[in-house]
Amino acid sequence: MRQRRRGSVQRVTMSDVARVAEVSPMTVSRALNQPDAVRPELRERVQEAVRKTGYIHDRIASALASHRSGMIAVILPTIASSMFSDSVRGISEVARARGAQIVLAETNYSVMEEEAAVAALLGRRPDGFIVIGTIQSERTRSQLVRAAVPVVETWDTTEEPVDSLIAFSNRDAAQAMTEALADLGYQRIAFAGVANGDRRARLREEGYRAGLTARALHAPQVVYVEDLTSMRSGALVADMVTALAPQPDALFCLNDVLAAGALLALQRKGLRVPDALGVAGFGGFDFAEHLVPSLTTVDVPRYAIGHEAACVLMDRIEGLADAHKISRTEFQICLRESTRDIIL
Amino acid sequence: MRQRRRGSVQRVTMSDVARVAEVSPMTVSRALNQPDAVRPELRERVQEAVRKTGYIHDRIASALASHRSGMIAVILPTIASSMFSDSVRGISEVARARGAQIVLAETNYSVMEEEAAVAALLGRRPDGFIVIGTIQSERTRSQLVRAAVPVVETWDTTEEPVDSLIAFSNRDAAQAMTEALADLGYQRIAFAGVANGDRRARLREEGYRAGLTARALHAPQVVYVEDLTSMRSGALVADMVTALAPQPDALFCLNDVLAAGALLALQRKGLRVPDALGVAGFGGFDFAEHLVPSLTTVDVPRYAIGHEAACVLMDRIEGLADAHKISRTEFQICLRESTRDIIL
Repeated sequence: MRQRRRGSVQRVTMSDVARVAEVSPMTVSRALNQPDAVRPELRERVQEAVRKTGYIHDRIASALASHRSGMIAVILPTIASSMFSDSVRGISEVARARGAQIVLAETNYSVMEEEAAVAALLGRRPDGFIVIGTIQSERTRSQLVRAAVPVVETWDTTEEPVDSLIAFSNRDAAQAMTEALADLGYQRIAFAGVANGDRRARLREEGYRAGLTARALHAPQVVYVEDLTSMRSGALVADMVTALAPQPDALFCLNDVLAAGALLALQRKGLRVPDALGVAGFGGFDFAEHLVPSLTTVDVPRYAIGHEAACVLMDRIEGLADAHKISRTEFQICLRESTRDIIL
Repeated sequence: MRQRRRGSVQRVTMSDVARVAEVSPMTVSRALNQPDAVRPELRERVQEAVRKTGYIHDRIASALASHRSGMIAVILPTIASSMFSDSVRGISEVARARGAQIVLAETNYSVMEEEAAVAALLGRRPDGFIVIGTIQSERTRSQLVRAAVPVVETWDTTEEPVDSLIAFSNRDAAQAMTEALADLGYQRIAFAGVANGDRRARLREEGYRAGLTARALHAPQVVYVEDLTSMRSGALVADMVTALAPQPDALFCLNDVLAAGALLALQRKGLRVPDALGVAGFGGFDFAEHLVPSLTTVDVPRYAIGHEAACVLMDRIEGLADAHKISRTEFQICLRESTRDIIL
C-alpha cells in the first residue's frame, strides 16, 4: 500500500537549477517569472536545467511576491456544450502561450451559482476573469468591481459591462435570422426557447418576436423546453411543434443542438425538411454543416471570441493595455439545405 | 476611462463578518474552511454575513496555513471534444459540492505538452490531479510521484498507474465491437484510426485487429486521419473507405464524431447505411442515438468516470481514504440501426 501525502515537494532549489544551467539564480528566477525578459538561448538552458533537476517552480510563493497568481478564472454556463468548449479552447491557447493557467467554474445558468463561483474564485486571487456570458447578479458585479481585477464579459451585449466586453447581440442575431426566414417565404415561423430565465435565451426570443413584427408576421408561436443542451430536448421540440395549430412552416431553435435534435426527430417522423418544415438553429456548430440536410444557422465565431477575450485580458494583466475595451464580434446568417432556397 | 488595478481587496475582515453574523471569528473561520464541521444554521448565518459584507475569503492565505490549495488539477487531451467535457462535468459537480476548484490544462494529445502542463500545474500546488487518459511521459510520472500528491488516471488501463486508476480497457472494448460486427455477419470490417501516436487510438486499433483474428477474419483494412475530433474528418474517412478494394461491408470508427461524420457523408453520397455499409463508433455520445439511422457504438460512462475519479481524489485529499484505488468501469456494446440486425 503506497502512502501518498504532501511531502518534501521542494527539495530541489532555484540554486540547484542555476548551478546546472551555469547561470545566476537571478537569471533562473527571471527565466521562470518573466520569460520574455530573457534571451531565448538562456531561457532554453534554464528550462533544460529545470527538466534535468526536476525543479518545481513554486507559483504560489511567486504569486505572493509578484501580486500575480498567473491564473485566469473562466466562468461559463456549462462545460457540457461544445458551444462554449470552443470558446474555452480559444482562451486556453492564449493562456498557454502567455504562461497563465485556467481555473474553471460552471454556473449551470444559475445566478446563485454564479455568485458562489465568483466568490470562491476571487479567494484564489486570479489575475483576471473571463465570463462566457455577462454577469447577471448585482452582488457579483459589485464584488468584481471592488476586487479591482480585469474582467472580460463575452457572448452578449450589456449596457453595463463590469469592465471589458467582447460582444455580439443575441437579440439582433435572432431578429436577423427570423427576417431571413420570412424573406425565404416562411409565414408561420415557430420558435423553440427555454423555460428558465437564461438571459441569452430571453434575448433571442425577443429578437425572434421583433423579426416577426419587422416582417409584418404576427401571432408568434413559441414552445419551451427545460433542457437547452441535449438532442433529446430537440426531439421534444419536434413533438411540440408538429402538434401546434395552425401548423408552422418553419422552426427556429435557440441553438444548434436543439435544432439538430428536432431535424433528426422530424426525419424519423417522416416529415421532410425543408419542404414540410424549415429548420434553423443558432451557434454555427461543427456538425450543423454536415447534417443531411445541412442546417441553416446563425454562425458565431466561438473560438475567436474566447481567443480575443483572453488576449484582451492578458494585455490588461500584463499592463500592455490600461483601459477597458468594448469590442463587437460579427455574426453571420448561414442559409443551408434545412431551409428552402427559393426567395419568394 | 476606468482604471482597474489590484487594490484594497481585503478591506472587509473576518472580524467584520463575525460581528454581522453575531458569532466568533473562530466560527467564521471554521464555517469557511471546514464547512462540514459547523452546524448548518451557523454556516448559513456566516454565509449570509459574507454576502452582506462582501467579504472575500482569501484562499491563498488559508492554503499556506492548511497546506491545501483547494484546487484540483485536471489534465485532458482537448477541451473541444464533448467526449471529455462530459467527464469534466462529472468532476466539476463533485468539486463544487466539496468546495474545490478545477484548474484545467490541455495536452493536445502531445507528450511534450503533457509535461509542460503538469509542471506548470504542480507549481500551483494543487491538492491532487485527475488525468483524462493516463500519464504518457516517464518524466511527468516521476515528477508526480516526487510531488506526493494523489493522482487519479482515467479512461484507460495501464500496468503502471502513478497512483489511482478508474479504467476501462480500450483494447477490449474495440475487440468486443469488432467481434459483435463479425457476429452480425460482416466479413470485411474496416477500421478508421488516427495517424498520430495517441495511446488510446493505438489500443483501439489493436483491439480491432485482435477481434478480426478471434473471428477468423483476416486482412484488416485500416484508414488513418490526422484529426480525430471533427465531423469533417469523418467525411474524409467515408471517402477513403469507399475507395478501398475489396469494398468493406462495415466501418468501425475510433470515435462517434468520426463515425457520425462518415455516416452523414455516406448518406450524402447516396450509400445506404446499414445495407451498403454498416457503421459503428466508440464513445456513446448523446447524438449517436438520435442520428437517422441511429449509430451503433461502444458506450462508455463518460460522466460517471469523471464523477468517480473526483470522488476518489477528494477522499484522498480529505484523508477519508489512505490507499490508492484501482477501479474498473464497464463499457457496453450498443447495437443500433447503423448496423444490420440479422445475426447470420
